[in-house]
Amino acid sequence: MLSYVPFSELARIRALDVAATERAAAFADACRVNTLTMIEHAGSGHIGTSFSSIDIVSWLQLEALGQDDRYFSSKGHDAPGLYAILIGLGRLPFDKLFALRALGGLPGHPDVLTTPEVVTNTGSLGMGISKARGFVLADRLAGRRGDVYVLTGDGELQEGQFWESLQPTANRGLGEITVIVDHNKLQSDTWVSQVSDLGELERKVEAFGWAVARCDGHDLDTFSTTLTELRGRAPDRPKLLVADTLKGAGVGFMEPHALPQEETALYDFHSGAPGPAAYAQALAELIERLNARLAGIGADEIRLEARESPRRTPPERPQRLIHAYGEALVAAAERAPSLVALDGDLRLDTGLVPFQERFPERFFECGIAEQDLVSQAGAMALAGLLPVCHSFACFLTPRAAEQVFNNASEGTKVLYHGSLAGIVPGGPGHSHQSVRDIALMGSVPGMAAIEPYCEAEVRRAVAWAAHEADGPVYLRLVSPPWPLGFDPPAAELVEGQGTVLREGEAGTFVCTGPVLVSQAWAACDALDGWGLVALPWLRSIDGAWLAEHAPGAIVCLDNHVLPGGQGEAVLNAFAASAPEAAARTRLVGVDGIPECGTNDEVLHAHGLDATSLVELLRA
Amino acid sequence: MLSYVPFSELARIRALDVAATERAAAFADACRVNTLTMIEHAGSGHIGTSFSSIDIVSWLQLEALGQDDRYFSSKGHDAPGLYAILIGLGRLPFDKLFALRALGGLPGHPDVLTTPEVVTNTGSLGMGISKARGFVLADRLAGRRGDVYVLTGDGELQEGQFWESLQPTANRGLGEITVIVDHNKLQSDTWVSQVSDLGELERKVEAFGWAVARCDGHDLDTFSTTLTELRGRAPDRPKLLVADTLKGAGVGFMEPHALPQEETALYDFHSGAPGPAAYAQALAELIERLNARLAGIGADEIRLEARESPRRTPPERPQRLIHAYGEALVAAAERAPSLVALDGDLRLDTGLVPFQERFPERFFECGIAEQDLVSQAGAMALAGLLPVCHSFACFLTPRAAEQVFNNASEGTKVLYHGSLAGIVPGGPGHSHQSVRDIALMGSVPGMAAIEPYCEAEVRRAVAWAAHEADGPVYLRLVSPPWPLGFDPPAAELVEGQGTVLREGEAGTFVCTGPVLVSQAWAACDALDGWGLVALPWLRSIDGAWLAEHAPGAIVCLDNHVLPGGQGEAVLNAFAASAPEAAARTRLVGVDGIPECGTNDEVLHAHGLDATSLVELLRA
Repeated sequence: MLSYVPFSELARIRALDVAATERAAAFADACRVNTLTMIEHAGSGHIGTSFSSIDIVSWLQLEALGQDDRYFSSKGHDAPGLYAILIGLGRLPFDKLFALRALGGLPGHPDVLTTPEVVTNTGSLGMGISKARGFVLADRLAGRRGDVYVLTGDGELQEGQFWESLQPTANRGLGEITVIVDHNKLQSDTWVSQVSDLGELERKVEAFGWAVARCDGHDLDTFSTTLTELRGRAPDRPKLLVADTLKGAGVGFMEPHALPQEETALYDFHSGAPGPAAYAQALAELIERLNARLAGIGADEIRLEARESPRRTPPERPQRLIHAYGEALVAAAERAPSLVALDGDLRLDTGLVPFQERFPERFFECGIAEQDLVSQAGAMALAGLLPVCHSFACFLTPRAAEQVFNNASEGTKVLYHGSLAGIVPGGPGHSHQSVRDIALMGSVPGMAAIEPYCEAEVRRAVAWAAHEADGPVYLRLVSPPWPLGFDPPAAELVEGQGTVLREGEAGTFVCTGPVLVSQAWAACDALDGWGLVALPWLRSIDGAWLAEHAPGAIVCLDNHVLPGGQGEAVLNAFAASAPEAAARTRLVGVDGIPECGTNDEVLHAHGLDATSLVELLRA
Repeated sequence: MLSYVPFSELARIRALDVAATERAAAFADACRVNTLTMIEHAGSGHIGTSFSSIDIVSWLQLEALGQDDRYFSSKGHDAPGLYAILIGLGRLPFDKLFALRALGGLPGHPDVLTTPEVVTNTGSLGMGISKARGFVLADRLAGRRGDVYVLTGDGELQEGQFWESLQPTANRGLGEITVIVDHNKLQSDTWVSQVSDLGELERKVEAFGWAVARCDGHDLDTFSTTLTELRGRAPDRPKLLVADTLKGAGVGFMEPHALPQEETALYDFHSGAPGPAAYAQALAELIERLNARLAGIGADEIRLEARESPRRTPPERPQRLIHAYGEALVAAAERAPSLVALDGDLRLDTGLVPFQERFPERFFECGIAEQDLVSQAGAMALAGLLPVCHSFACFLTPRAAEQVFNNASEGTKVLYHGSLAGIVPGGPGHSHQSVRDIALMGSVPGMAAIEPYCEAEVRRAVAWAAHEADGPVYLRLVSPPWPLGFDPPAAELVEGQGTVLREGEAGTFVCTGPVLVSQAWAACDALDGWGLVALPWLRSIDGAWLAEHAPGAIVCLDNHVLPGGQGEAVLNAFAASAPEAAARTRLVGVDGIPECGTNDEVLHAHGLDATSLVELLRA
């Protein structure tokens, strides 16, 4: 069972006749309960940063923001905490509490189109101050005056755009802007100080002409006093308040007290649902904390309501590409002593933990600084190393698009790993669903681009990239463990060619990645005479081979938008070497900005699940 | 006639038995002569920054750099000055002095593949420290030790990557790195302080944990002493030396003494050749300066050699798209009061001067900070404005690739102007030749992308984008004035469709932009029965219309790489609505990293000039 604080109880807390800071702290604790439940119900969500910021955001929303003011979080992944607050204020429907990361519900990261209470879309880091400046300049031009409060992370401050935006904001004297750093000292993997230390943060920001202060971000008396003092200090200067917080604040075992100050330490509660046992423990602790607070201000204890937990079944015999990648990279590095790995604070999610353990001196943690990471790798390649750059596809390929091209212009070999590719997982939302990366990487002259559909193909692809490719390679990987519905056959990796998984004379699906291959496989089961070719090459396709092995109508599926995707690469290859096949090819891909929802919902919404494919081809 | 200092004279100066700083200063002045002549001969090149940095670079190359050390310029556009020095040192062949920006010669920006003396490719700003770190970490891993000297611009410091790279470099204690800022106070258009002031530069960099000093960058006694002191100060800290310099230093009228400290002031000698009269005046002044210096150290006066000036004929009746854009934008802004323009320090080159003059309060100069610019525009759009973002295509589209997508996810309308699109002008080299921007922008869901081929179509496109489009639009523009070879007919802009410029039954060229349209037009003159359709839409093409209006063999030409370009968009459109046409279509585009050279050389090298097209189709 899941427990939550009903709206009437949240309204009761908001109406308590006590000091504003005490009221806000109690409201925040009540919202912690609902945030926890929201994430456990959704099965994923960023709990650590929702809890580190929820006292601050509660204070801003309850007491600080005026009607013409704006608040948004630049990091964006604290969205569950914000949603719980807006629900508690009656500004979002209460039933949305059980619609986190569901289609038509509340997206994993902020989205203005589905959630009008949200001010701007975030989730890709470092954009907050730039956006704040845009709002203020637009307001000034229209003769309006509104303050803008921006919450940032601390790991987020590794992004160059944050620093790029500081000086122009000071130069224009935009005193309307107040930035609050949720300084919980932990980023995705581990301690900020271990990933890429921020140095003297206050001194740095002050040197850019900002007014700066620092205080506890959980003690609202201190926080509100410091905020007021800072905002009064310099009317024509933007302000930044470093708020010292605890990641996971409010739940003892989610706070990082026991986490060693080591590079290899890993924090457990950045994202993901706690699971039943940890949920129950956290819930009990939060209720006790909330009731103690209510008792302390003479209020009745909280009344909770309950709801069934949703049931989830784990996938059967899934392909775990990231795990396979981690092992394959270590094997490649054993054979290639020049191979080094660079990471953008996603060591766990990109499968780099085994590499770091095996080759600590060849592992370079770069933090959330993709431009810096990729240019650094370029110089390493010039100096004789074989660098492999790691991040999510959604960050690595657009944020370092220029640096990747610059490296390619030097004729060196740099490898790029982009995981979390495509529209699943569907929960995080469009900031994390990478649907442009083939276009971005495939348009770099000389870049090979490859996406495996099974673990064995991951191993083949990594070995090919490390030992055989003579130029840069983009390796695109689907992240969630995913069942294919069949056992992948043994196969060789042949440049430009793929694997015929099933034959059919009526038509042939052409695609790659476990998500699309599994959907196409299931569609073949329902259609008469359809075959399936898994084609790992995203560019530089052997059109003659494919035309010969893809009889009938050809349907290219893209876990990507059509422009610049694999389907267009197939057409391009056909135009060059098998024109007749071009006339029997159609393309199906992601249309529009990716939807947020469960994986099944998202695949269906974009017409890429087996059912939609069967319908399309029977129409 | 052009005059230059022959190699024997440069060798004589290098061998002078005088103080090292006096020798280096004389060598630098001799190299100024050769830089001036190199640029005048080439017809373009960055003279202002070559002159502001040439004393520093001469000192480094003659006296400071050890065998295992590396030097490179992060800004890169001071390449002519560096080339003159390397030629004077005998490290580049002397005849390359007359091969600047020529195919097989010395590229407009550094290129390791064509110029092995160059350490790394630069020209896109802000990458220098990241690269330096890559070199040092690779050296350390290999047990080598070499110092790395990086020259940066000052306008360049507006780029976020510079700031992104500072802290990790300090954190790793990379004392091998010394950054020298060529602080000439002027960027592309005007004063750095007017574009986007750097604030307290030394204080800022020190706050990131760097050792910092500042001195005169033309007085080599002071400079060398300060450099030595700084490098000895902190062995485990990276160092940054702010060198105060004058843009155009050495030629009185190129130095900015008379330039008013105003936002609208424009500096004349950032790039481009001086032209015969200014050349003669500058040459006389430089020779006098050099001889005075030689006399001062008791050396004979300089002996010059001479060479014919190349003759250039200006294009006849060219289409001036940038000029037309500037007027069209003002017209659109008259009609749309919400239209505002954001510029990335390319006001002159993007045609924004008339807009700034007419609507100063709606003009936002953002400096060289494309990420900040684009995110700012996104917020302005949310606040009700119609922002138009301006930069070169090569910078705007890759550097802000993530920010453009983020804006699109908000469903707002933001316009993007990317000029300098495609492979001409060929002189600046691959850092400035934009051949991926259609893939980058066309893969953004909901983004319209349009490239006009003539001035009238620019006006139609701007009006459509501003007043009719219901979402974001990318406007792609060829920059150099370019003759078509015919008078463009009157036409309407119809979504997805183009203009049939000439009819032919044998085959049809499909392309856009004045460069390709002019080449295809000329190819049609030489081929029997070929027609030409100018198709301004780069994506979302009306395949049925095009199939009907493009009889015979269809050849799509792309001033862009094939992946994600217009040719693939045509195939995609045919696959959806005119499959038969897909089978008679072939694609021709830019293959590989763009070559540097004259426009004719570059078009021919990539097989996109009329002669190559005729050969291809006759083969």
